[in-house]
Amino acid sequence: MHDNPKQLAAFFDTLCAAAAEQTLSRFRLPLDIANKLDSGFDPVTEGDREAEKAIRALLKEHLPNDGIVGEEFGRENENAAFQWIIDPIDGTRAFISGIPVWGTLIGLYKDGVPYAGVMDQPFTGERYVALPGSQPTLSLRNSAPQPLATRATENLEAATLMTTSPNIFPTDHKPRYDALERTTKLVRYGCDCYAYAMVASGQVDMVAESGLSSYDIAALIPIIEGAGGVVSTWDGESAAQGGTVLASANRTLHEKALKALSP
Amino acid sequence: MHDNPKQLAAFFDTLCAAAAEQTLSRFRLPLDIANKLDSGFDPVTEGDREAEKAIRALLKEHLPNDGIVGEEFGRENENAAFQWIIDPIDGTRAFISGIPVWGTLIGLYKDGVPYAGVMDQPFTGERYVALPGSQPTLSLRNSAPQPLATRATENLEAATLMTTSPNIFPTDHKPRYDALERTTKLVRYGCDCYAYAMVASGQVDMVAESGLSSYDIAALIPIIEGAGGVVSTWDGESAAQGGTVLASANRTLHEKALKALSP
Repeated sequence: MHDNPKQLAAFFDTLCAAAAEQTLSRFRLPLDIANKLDSGFDPVTEGDREAEKAIRALLKEHLPNDGIVGEEFGRENENAAFQWIIDPIDGTRAFISGIPVWGTLIGLYKDGVPYAGVMDQPFTGERYVALPGSQPTLSLRNSAPQPLATRATENLEAATLMTTSPNIFPTDHKPRYDALERTTKLVRYGCDCYAYAMVASGQVDMVAESGLSSYDIAALIPIIEGAGGVVSTWDGESAAQGGTVLASANRTLHEKALKALSP
Repeated sequence: MHDNPKQLAAFFDTLCAAAAEQTLSRFRLPLDIANKLDSGFDPVTEGDREAEKAIRALLKEHLPNDGIVGEEFGRENENAAFQWIIDPIDGTRAFISGIPVWGTLIGLYKDGVPYAGVMDQPFTGERYVALPGSQPTLSLRNSAPQPLATRATENLEAATLMTTSPNIFPTDHKPRYDALERTTKLVRYGCDCYAYAMVASGQVDMVAESGLSSYDIAALIPIIEGAGGVVSTWDGESAAQGGTVLASANRTLHEKALKALSP
């Protein structure tokens, strides 16, 4: 299946449908919200856990030798060449606030390198998909997939930047982020994975965040890069394992943004 | 028509459909963005203007004696008892960034008092409607309207607060807003009129903003208040003409938030 884009696309659809059954049915309903962390506010919904269980069950049924890394239930088959990287609900704060900018993220790495991925927003009906060997696409409510392409914006002064919140950066990252934000034309807050989908689809130019895990970005890297964008850490390294992340519409803009973010 | 909720509901649907034809067809397309202000960034799209024209044309055809206040084309029939207050695209920055948290706002005042209103988000297919004499409703993609009800949250420490951006408050409002934000459990940024719809539908507890015009809030007041919430300025006065605005899920929470916002 890994080498057959058509089969892989159909499998992504199956995985997303199974996850959506668990997430969408709990969206905008009173929720039993558990606090995952001892301090701070990190809500994990029943939908989060049930969606990951549903995805894992399908992976084990169809691809029992593949590895899995998930936000909720950790790692399996760590030494497999193909690794599935799952965030069942990226943007749990948006989810519990009724805002449809959360998404189900399912990435596939081959030998540690992003290979394919899907970002699904079942309330709006948007499915962003990257498959090996072709341009990523957006399918809206099961309509025919449309190719994604990033913007040509080459100057920070003309660029739109997104981040989840300007107040979540640790002390050593905050001045670096602020320096980037100051140079841009427009900044929008509050969109989690949806912001990356907007870069891939040419709606905004950049996303800058820090403190990400691999499952926060894995699915999004091939979607953005296949559409013409660039994703790296703030130091220009691979973002495949998370950390600081900068996603840009193109290489020229990315280099300028990395310079603005330099310590 | 004004006194017949069924006719008024059908007319709201007609107005929203006419506006959506102009907005949705331009959403996520390359846009000619005009700067409305000499300085600063205040994009007004062609969709903004065409949607207001379409709404005004229908109002003049069906209710030629009513007044109109619109973001794009000013006032007409200023002395009429019934005034239609229009923001064709509230959240133009969200609109030009591809994020479906903008909306078409159409409010109706009777003798200066909010009387009915609709907030329409045509991409997600959400229509929030308040009619005289009944509970406000949400209709999702033309499905049967479901009644809206706000939350029972009574303590700031348990509340979710939304605002468009923490960086847009003028100097005299910023410390007041920050004082409120500090007391709340969770804060979400970036949602324009969509945030108020989330208060009305019981997804979040409060919205605090300043510098609003009447057309930014007119349609939303009856939707929130009919669902059990409270809307006022930060000083507890009517928000019908805009200014500082606080919207809360209920009276108890509202009083506590006003206290936190007091200078």
